Amino acid sequence: MSDVREQLLAAGARARRAARDLATRSDQEKSGALVAAAEQIEKTEAEILSANESDLKQGATNGLSSALLDRLKLDHVRLAAICRSLREVAQLPDPVGEVIKEWSRPDGLRFKKVRVPIGVIGIIFESRPNVTSDAASLCLKTGNAVILRGGSEALASNIALGAALRAGCRHAGIPEDAVQVVSSTDRSAVRAMAEMAELIDLIIPRGGKQLIEAVTASARMPVIKHFDGICHVYVDKAADFEMAQSIVINAKCQRPSVCNAAETLLVHAAIAKEFLERCGPELRHRGVELRGDPETQAILGSSVRPATDQDWRTEHLDLVLSVRVVPSLADAIAHVETYGSHHSDTIVTNDEQAATEFLNKVDSAAVFWNASTRFNDGGEFGFGAEIGISTDRLHARGPMALEELTIYKYQVIGQGHVKA
Amino acid sequence: MSDVREQLLAAGARARRAARDLATRSDQEKSGALVAAAEQIEKTEAEILSANESDLKQGATNGLSSALLDRLKLDHVRLAAICRSLREVAQLPDPVGEVIKEWSRPDGLRFKKVRVPIGVIGIIFESRPNVTSDAASLCLKTGNAVILRGGSEALASNIALGAALRAGCRHAGIPEDAVQVVSSTDRSAVRAMAEMAELIDLIIPRGGKQLIEAVTASARMPVIKHFDGICHVYVDKAADFEMAQSIVINAKCQRPSVCNAAETLLVHAAIAKEFLERCGPELRHRGVELRGDPETQAILGSSVRPATDQDWRTEHLDLVLSVRVVPSLADAIAHVETYGSHHSDTIVTNDEQAATEFLNKVDSAAVFWNASTRFNDGGEFGFGAEIGISTDRLHARGPMALEELTIYKYQVIGQGHVKA
Repeated sequence: MSDVREQLLAAGARARRAARDLATRSDQEKSGALVAAAEQIEKTEAEILSANESDLKQGATNGLSSALLDRLKLDHVRLAAICRSLREVAQLPDPVGEVIKEWSRPDGLRFKKVRVPIGVIGIIFESRPNVTSDAASLCLKTGNAVILRGGSEALASNIALGAALRAGCRHAGIPEDAVQVVSSTDRSAVRAMAEMAELIDLIIPRGGKQLIEAVTASARMPVIKHFDGICHVYVDKAADFEMAQSIVINAKCQRPSVCNAAETLLVHAAIAKEFLERCGPELRHRGVELRGDPETQAILGSSVRPATDQDWRTEHLDLVLSVRVVPSLADAIAHVETYGSHHSDTIVTNDEQAATEFLNKVDSAAVFWNASTRFNDGGEFGFGAEIGISTDRLHARGPMALEELTIYKYQVIGQGHVKA
Repeated sequence: MSDVREQLLAAGARARRAARDLATRSDQEKSGALVAAAEQIEKTEAEILSANESDLKQGATNGLSSALLDRLKLDHVRLAAICRSLREVAQLPDPVGEVIKEWSRPDGLRFKKVRVPIGVIGIIFESRPNVTSDAASLCLKTGNAVILRGGSEALASNIALGAALRAGCRHAGIPEDAVQVVSSTDRSAVRAMAEMAELIDLIIPRGGKQLIEAVTASARMPVIKHFDGICHVYVDKAADFEMAQSIVINAKCQRPSVCNAAETLLVHAAIAKEFLERCGPELRHRGVELRGDPETQAILGSSVRPATDQDWRTEHLDLVLSVRVVPSLADAIAHVETYGSHHSDTIVTNDEQAATEFLNKVDSAAVFWNASTRFNDGGEFGFGAEIGISTDRLHARGPMALEELTIYKYQVIGQGHVKA
């Protein structure tokens, strides 16, 4: 057995013990650990920033892009945001212990479906060190132990933040092994974690497609995937043009690099000319490259590049928008179902019947009516925090927050009941 | 690409199309298909029994045990039970479309969390042909398309039952590809299915440990596992002896071959002598082999075989019971948590405090107080049916019925909302 595997198995066994303990801790204890962790980060800011400095130096030597170096960077403002977020999560209601359902059977057996932690959660992520505290805080709050495996480029920063979180746990009398940062940068660590089905109950990969696929391919335990968003704005023939334009611009331009940004604009043929002649220049003015079907090209001119079949299937994550004119609502829905990634899609219309059909027939994690796709986000949903936006169709779909980090058990009370 | 893989990809594409259609069908249409399938089974009983006869002949030639041949066998009574079950599932309330939660945000966005089908479900199972109709009926009722891959020994029976289910779909105007039985008996079919993550949203293996592990190892999509039950009865010092004895006997003897039967008896030291002297002979009288720790042996005599560490970890599925005397409730809980499989465990006691501690601290899918572990069953829970008892800690835990075959999506309604 390799050293890495051995280390991880030991970490897993410690996490399992910590999870057993955590499962029956009060909200006060768990939230106390989060507040104490924030205080510890504030107290040890110099050490954390110096660890981050060494990651940044190493990253520069290794030729990381300036965008990656920026994602990696911590400073006083970013640490303050991390601490604020820890305190916010501490304030959220604890879902553990909630009685989800309660019923009795004719034979007198009484049933309770009670919310409990999942157990041990593995998070495998890339570059941004704030994931360490975000993910750990949500796991801790819900009574789960967490094993964090970040990217090698952020190792010193992750270990420093992890140490503060562990100090917070100790301070609150909670086992510090509730939070563990994997210190091995060996690639085999990911595979070793993915195979520890007895010790890790759920793995959440946060990062690029390659990372997610590598984890999914080797994982023996459940994985919740956070894949890409090929999100659509459909402007119906009964749309308010001003509203439609502001939603298109918001969905595409407000933050093009995120999964809930729009990639494709569908426009009903009946209003395509008028709407595109109005909205097209506004998009271009904001630096958006348009790629259109022939109808769009006919309206906006030959400077619009033709959209290929691949464009409809691509998450550009950039100021690029594919545009298609559709003859009907049904065609818009068919396009979304054929090319979309079932993430976030919106219809802009004043026709309630059309909206209802779109809301019911588009099978995406979040379907919107007269709102930007950018609202598919735990914070906007009112969840207070999120660990990501699940593109899976099991357990958690869409924004994943505290409730989605729990499962349930049944408590059944009889009076000597035996089965006939 | 192999023929088997090609066949399965084609089946998956048909299932995906059927699932899209099914997702928005009414309960009346889906239930109509189930009732029509029952009528079709009744009409074609002779053909189904003749297909089953050929499976049985082939099985006898291949040297299947009489137990396996019995599980494989269909007759008029068993087909009538299948038809009754189809009609019962048709009568159950349809969970699809249920608004699970509804809320508004201060910015005026309105949210609905709506129950929807999962999509395409793959079921990989062994020998018992009634799984074909049980699983298909639960999937159909919840608007999911299903691909069924049964064991080769039941192929003709499964295809005959599948044909009746497909005829039921046609009759109700639902796409017949909502139910597909894989006709390839090639082992590579399991792997091919497990790799079709784009076309199958969930795989449920129903069968032995080897089958489940093979599916889990190759699956790229979520799997819900139905592993074994190492279930405990803990007789507390405050137990009513008569009740405790009847629960022990029921949990062990009523049907020893199932996952919710008890494998280990834990007895509080303060009452161990009195209780075991009373209960031990009753168990032996029913043919139960006892394997005990030294304290149990001291009480019941040397004819009790010593229990090994392996015994505590074994699902005997037979008239064998491991017995341990524990000094305290805490030790009982520690034993269950160390050796159990988190399936079904019960405490017998009249002490409410002890019961509450057991119910809270034992982390099993179903934890009982003064009731037999045998009640961990969808029917007993009032779910009307079940596709199995999940031993996973994600999405579904314990009895898996209609609700557990669904997921949700969010519908979000704005008035032109854009993100600031």
